[in-house]
Amino acid sequence: MHAVCDRVAPGVTVIDVTHGVPAHDVRAGALTLWRAVPWLVPGVVLGVVDPGVGTARRAVALTVAAAGATLVGPDNGLLIPAAHRLGPITEAVEIVPDAGLGPPGDWGATFAGRDVFAPAAARAALGVALDRIGTAVDPASLAGEPVPRPTRSGDVVHAEVLWVDRFGNAQLNATAADLPAPPAAEVLVEVGSRSWVGRLVGSYGDIAPDPVAVVVDSYGHLSICCDRRSAAATYGLAVGQPVRLSRSERHPR
Amino acid sequence: MHAVCDRVAPGVTVIDVTHGVPAHDVRAGALTLWRAVPWLVPGVVLGVVDPGVGTARRAVALTVAAAGATLVGPDNGLLIPAAHRLGPITEAVEIVPDAGLGPPGDWGATFAGRDVFAPAAARAALGVALDRIGTAVDPASLAGEPVPRPTRSGDVVHAEVLWVDRFGNAQLNATAADLPAPPAAEVLVEVGSRSWVGRLVGSYGDIAPDPVAVVVDSYGHLSICCDRRSAAATYGLAVGQPVRLSRSERHPR
Amino acid sequence: MHAVCDRVAPGVTVIDVTHGVPAHDVRAGALTLWRAVPWLVPGVVLGVVDPGVGTARRAVALTVAAAGATLVGPDNGLLIPAAHRLGPITEAVEIVPDAGLGPPGDWGATFAGRDVFAPAAARAALGVALDRIGTAVDPASLAGEPVPRPTRSGDVVHAEVLWVDRFGNAQLNATAADLPAPPAAEVLVEVGSRSWVGRLVGSYGDIAPDPVAVVVDSYGHLSICCDRRSAAATYGLAVGQPVRLSRSERHPR
Repeated sequence: MHAVCDRVAPGVTVIDVTHGVPAHDVRAGALTLWRAVPWLVPGVVLGVVDPGVGTARRAVALTVAAAGATLVGPDNGLLIPAAHRLGPITEAVEIVPDAGLGPPGDWGATFAGRDVFAPAAARAALGVALDRIGTAVDPASLAGEPVPRPTRSGDVVHAEVLWVDRFGNAQLNATAADLPAPPAAEVLVEVGSRSWVGRLVGSYGDIAPDPVAVVVDSYGHLSICCDRRSAAATYGLAVGQPVRLSRSERHPR
Repeated sequence: MHAVCDRVAPGVTVIDVTHGVPAHDVRAGALTLWRAVPWLVPGVVLGVVDPGVGTARRAVALTVAAAGATLVGPDNGLLIPAAHRLGPITEAVEIVPDAGLGPPGDWGATFAGRDVFAPAAARAALGVALDRIGTAVDPASLAGEPVPRPTRSGDVVHAEVLWVDRFGNAQLNATAADLPAPPAAEVLVEVGSRSWVGRLVGSYGDIAPDPVAVVVDSYGHLSICCDRRSAAATYGLAVGQPVRLSRSERHPR
Repeated sequence: MHAVCDRVAPGVTVIDVTHGVPAHDVRAGALTLWRAVPWLVPGVVLGVVDPGVGTARRAVALTVAAAGATLVGPDNGLLIPAAHRLGPITEAVEIVPDAGLGPPGDWGATFAGRDVFAPAAARAALGVALDRIGTAVDPASLAGEPVPRPTRSGDVVHAEVLWVDRFGNAQLNATAADLPAPPAAEVLVEVGSRSWVGRLVGSYGDIAPDPVAVVVDSYGHLSICCDRRSAAATYGLAVGQPVRLSRSERHPR
């Protein structure tokens, strides 16, 4: 894909956000793009997590004019959280692959990143208009958000684990703003029949001397973290696990 | 190696194909280059999988004039499938390391990528002629193909597993053209005493609702794949395993 | 971090040395920089292994004027072996984060690489003077060397394992110059109650036909290595393990 970009758009800067998204995990990919996208635009953002490659799922390119952003990838929700973070989607096309850039005709259609998405992204980076990259589709017809939002019942926030990073920190789909006002110094965390209390802190270095805390991470999300240990391993947390958050009634220490 | 390239040839675009080749696996490295090379040329291709580093194995640079390609690496077969894919090797040299680019004299000779291959590749990228990078050797003296070809006995193709990717797809050393004519809709796959039937399909998305299929992958190779599951884990497939392919006699469904 | 660098300093070449340092392992990070730094300067070197992120540990930038080098990272010793390898530290500042480059104010301070270090490094790469990137601190106040030095008692060198690479080679914190003179052809290696003899060789290819050898590696360090097998697995070696080295009394073969 880098080589294709270099052929189509020599000299354009290409930045790898990550190669670490788990196989077929559209939600993890969507979250990754959502995290990085404020730093990637104005520009072209190419994402491929594509379990439907070769089926009828569409290959699309979107524009968020307010941010000077074009997003390219499969129409499976991957691009949507990042796009919505930037503003309303103002244009969308279904990519028409450029036959001149594909592989020999007797090869399989399994590597759309190389044969469809990278050529389209590189052409967009050159300033080619979207209507020359594909045929217009209604932005409302695009696949929706793959990342769930937290809900509230009374003072309890029903969140879930979105991501476990390589340090074992468990990022939730809730931000500090999702907690009931006024902000609590300590949060009661409940997972199934287990529960514990963690202070709400602003950095990993503030966790100690407690065994666990709720950290407002560098994307504004709440994250369950231990001091230099894996919270996921310690508390048995995994992606998709429901987590309930509420104000702790514990007496201040 | 990137830093050395940048010193010798500032501003030259360097693209990483992969850092994921298993240690000492010349065949996997050769296959990786074979897959990527059509997109990398005209240009210089540098590959290092080099269990013989520091021994008498030669460090070489090859030219395939028809493709505008120079390939740099150890003379252990690593470069040969990629070179042959591009055309006949028209020139070969044994690299003479540039003393000015090496490390201090009391350091070991274990990192030829940094001290021998990267300087030679960067100089080739600058347009330095091969006869100034090394001393001519006969292309016929180079180590041969490390990747085995499939064989046929009657209507049975004797192939083997070349590669298991991170999705668990098992790529074979056979293409659709290696199957007996006329092309079969379904292929009988035999591994040891086990066998199963898979449809011959053009993409991963076409596997379902079947548990397994034979996919013509994005390099034209046949690949044994499951729908969003590891075929390698499900069917016990590993690199080097013999696989027999023939027309399925099963009644069409 | 790449995107931040590209925003602050468009067109500046950015080279990834590695993303493979184990979580929180300042010593492994320091060693990685020490190995690579001669090829990275003149220039700016950015390193982040930062278990203390968000605490009072300082974010610093250092200059080694003799090498035309600026090093940027946390004040936890990470940068020190690389800096000392280049020459005396001639200037140091505590970085004052550029508010215009940080994330929204309600986000956490957990990603200093993105919000503090990358902006500082990119500005240094543009030639911004250190006194405009932070406030001067005394180089003598910086955290010290995280990498231990070997010691000698009589003719025995007390070393330890610094690093086990992906081939299973165990790099020690001793160089050939740390061995007692005159140089021995064979070295007695003692780990706990186990011991073995290995020839002192200049490359991995020279190990065979012996099962193990002491290789002077490509950074001048002694490394315990097997021929195409993991010495770490074979001999039970791990990072931090004490290793005693002395002249072998074995009769020459």
